[in-house]
Amino acid sequence: MKNIPYRYYLPEEKMPKAWYNLRSAMPEKPDPLINPGTGQPVTADDLRPVFCDELIAQELDNDTPEFEIPKPILDMYRIYRPSPIVRAYRLEEALQTPAHIYYKFEGNNTSGSHKLNSALAQAYYAKAQGMKALTTETGAGQWGTALAEACAAFGLELTVYMVKGSYNQKPYRKDVIRTFGASVIASPSDTTQAGRAILEKDPNTTGSLGCAISEAVEKAVTTPDCRYVLGSVLNQVLLHQSVIGLESYEAMLAFDEYPDIIVGCAGGGSNLGGLIAPFMRDTLTGRREGTRYVAVEPASCPSLTRGQYAYDFCDTGKITPMAKMYTLGSGFIPSANHAGGLRYHGMSPLLSKLYHDGRMEAVSYEQTQVFDAAVQFARLETILPAPESAHAIRAAMDEAVRCRESGEAKTILFGLTGTGYFDMAAYASYLDKTMGDYVPRNDEILAR
Amino acid sequence: MKNIPYRYYLPEEKMPKAWYNLRSAMPEKPDPLINPGTGQPVTADDLRPVFCDELIAQELDNDTPEFEIPKPILDMYRIYRPSPIVRAYRLEEALQTPAHIYYKFEGNNTSGSHKLNSALAQAYYAKAQGMKALTTETGAGQWGTALAEACAAFGLELTVYMVKGSYNQKPYRKDVIRTFGASVIASPSDTTQAGRAILEKDPNTTGSLGCAISEAVEKAVTTPDCRYVLGSVLNQVLLHQSVIGLESYEAMLAFDEYPDIIVGCAGGGSNLGGLIAPFMRDTLTGRREGTRYVAVEPASCPSLTRGQYAYDFCDTGKITPMAKMYTLGSGFIPSANHAGGLRYHGMSPLLSKLYHDGRMEAVSYEQTQVFDAAVQFARLETILPAPESAHAIRAAMDEAVRCRESGEAKTILFGLTGTGYFDMAAYASYLDKTMGDYVPRNDEILAR
Repeated sequence: MKNIPYRYYLPEEKMPKAWYNLRSAMPEKPDPLINPGTGQPVTADDLRPVFCDELIAQELDNDTPEFEIPKPILDMYRIYRPSPIVRAYRLEEALQTPAHIYYKFEGNNTSGSHKLNSALAQAYYAKAQGMKALTTETGAGQWGTALAEACAAFGLELTVYMVKGSYNQKPYRKDVIRTFGASVIASPSDTTQAGRAILEKDPNTTGSLGCAISEAVEKAVTTPDCRYVLGSVLNQVLLHQSVIGLESYEAMLAFDEYPDIIVGCAGGGSNLGGLIAPFMRDTLTGRREGTRYVAVEPASCPSLTRGQYAYDFCDTGKITPMAKMYTLGSGFIPSANHAGGLRYHGMSPLLSKLYHDGRMEAVSYEQTQVFDAAVQFARLETILPAPESAHAIRAAMDEAVRCRESGEAKTILFGLTGTGYFDMAAYASYLDKTMGDYVPRNDEILAR
Repeated sequence: MKNIPYRYYLPEEKMPKAWYNLRSAMPEKPDPLINPGTGQPVTADDLRPVFCDELIAQELDNDTPEFEIPKPILDMYRIYRPSPIVRAYRLEEALQTPAHIYYKFEGNNTSGSHKLNSALAQAYYAKAQGMKALTTETGAGQWGTALAEACAAFGLELTVYMVKGSYNQKPYRKDVIRTFGASVIASPSDTTQAGRAILEKDPNTTGSLGCAISEAVEKAVTTPDCRYVLGSVLNQVLLHQSVIGLESYEAMLAFDEYPDIIVGCAGGGSNLGGLIAPFMRDTLTGRREGTRYVAVEPASCPSLTRGQYAYDFCDTGKITPMAKMYTLGSGFIPSANHAGGLRYHGMSPLLSKLYHDGRMEAVSYEQTQVFDAAVQFARLETILPAPESAHAIRAAMDEAVRCRESGEAKTILFGLTGTGYFDMAAYASYLDKTMGDYVPRNDEILAR
């Protein structure tokens, strides 16, 4: 592809028509979700009050390689997809690296991130099953925005439990969600038993994703024709996000390149799991050797690099199934000065398994290092990255610098998951040099 | 193009290599800028202390049809261009219109609008001439952000005078501009004579674009190796923005369509002037008949629909040349509740001339009507539009409804100039039903 040196958009006819299920290529599957009541793997019936039937089927299916994308979802994808793959020439030049750096940019939609890919899928299946409403949680607000867009598109009511710290720090995020017609409640709230119990223990808590999940699940199971949806962590979400990797795979073919290193930020793991899916297939099936996969996380919320690989609850209120994953403990709350997103206490069981099996690496950074990279990237590549995405930028830049030192012209692909328009308070504190770092003590990581 | 029904990106090899100068096709040219000291048309020498030489040449050249885009600018364009043309199927369906509605979306870059197209050009020419710094004004902040990005790309210092009302209402905009390395000063300020004079008259003024221009020009001419740049109104800016129209023209060919109606919001006129350029060429040269061009403006800042076609100053401090344009008077300040941007007192002389000659129509809307359209569009098409852009959405929707009534399947193209991420306070006031409208009295329109 000599004529397309900068950014590449797949032609519409090449856009993926099916999601790819990476579990189908794994010789050992991720450990199953466990019903804490029975101690047994969850069944479809266990999950039915919480999730839609089709999504449960996707969640539990470790074998089917492809799931066809229903046409109404494809029609919505076509409004904002394909997302571009961009060759970061200016970043390469600034780093004086022989590496070829590419980024897959998922920020060109109003949700500001890749989250819309799964939101549309989950809203569609709920509508198709005759549901009238959904509930969810949101932290930084990208997932809540994405789901509000999806519910507006398919005609569903939506209640979003927003982590109270974010609700207060980022009032405009709430207004975006409201613009798409959803209701937003600061969590923990007095609208659920789970919320009231958490507030009783700690009335001044700024909340956590774990708390907000407890409330959203409770609200879903106590409301008629209502289901709960989650923006990351679950197998189904990684399945939907494979659209990122599938588009990237085609684009890299068009560039006549294959990534040596794939880098992604990892909170719950949905972006990274989606980005690596078809490449990891090549690795697991032996079609390709030597590809490195790097998960990047905040030093202040280091589930892979410092968590325990164990069964844990997905929420703080302990009303969800238990997942085998790298976890900091379901009560873990990142330090108050943490501004970079990726604040979930656990990690996708699928990615946890790959990491545990040595298929993937993980690295963590303190937030000032991350914002260093964010600002440098913005000035070079014109895009204001989300702090989450800037974790991947930081690691990709460091890999590129190592290439400079070794003289190797490696191909690096990283996921630029979103934009930082609603993170300007964090950028301002970085610019004003009032941003601090925090690395949790071992005793704060509850599961240890 | 049967296979590309939703969004279309020009292949990189089809991206414009030259800007198109619409003045070259005009049988009667726009009236020249006048030097208020001499009463004569401005010369290149008059402008040299303020503008860069190459930009002056572009400003004064009514005849050359094409200006080649220098390679460093093309390289930057390739990072965020081409911008997509999207067929608004869901909007068509919701309006039950036989019309085909397309929008050219310029919001997929960090500046949040089309402004980056001219910012890169102006920064490049300044750097090429050996300048070290630039100054400018910004209202809503899109232009300031765009120029900050451009100055970061080409290595120039930048001082942005930001209208005080916006500076206080939209603190995060300032932080975006700072992220790209520029300085931001609330205008009017005590850093210039012009600012001090305005403050002396009215210490509590929230400022205006006209005030901020006075300050930025003064700062430029009193600083070594520094020039002033403007984000709209001028011929040179419309020239650079022709890239919007040229891409749109190619895309419409690929869709096998030709717009019957082209709609754009109009503040200073840069987006609309750029969007219509190659189509208006067809109209003016008789290659095509019957195309309608519709400028849309706020009822609270109605330069075309209620202003006077007369020579007026481009700034409040009356230190700029005078332009023949539709104007509300250089002292005009939109009402305090005005939230929709497009707040300049005048209109591009080029567009003013076309409007005066009956080549173009103009329509105005009150802001609640505009936000009605913005929210409806967001929920259907997933994009959160800038309030500015929503003026065009409103008018395009109304044209599409007229098509429903007449049964005509017209092709409507509108410019979706940007995103509204920094306008959430305005969206919130709309959602909370606290947003009001304001139509200025005749005696507030100073030039009448």
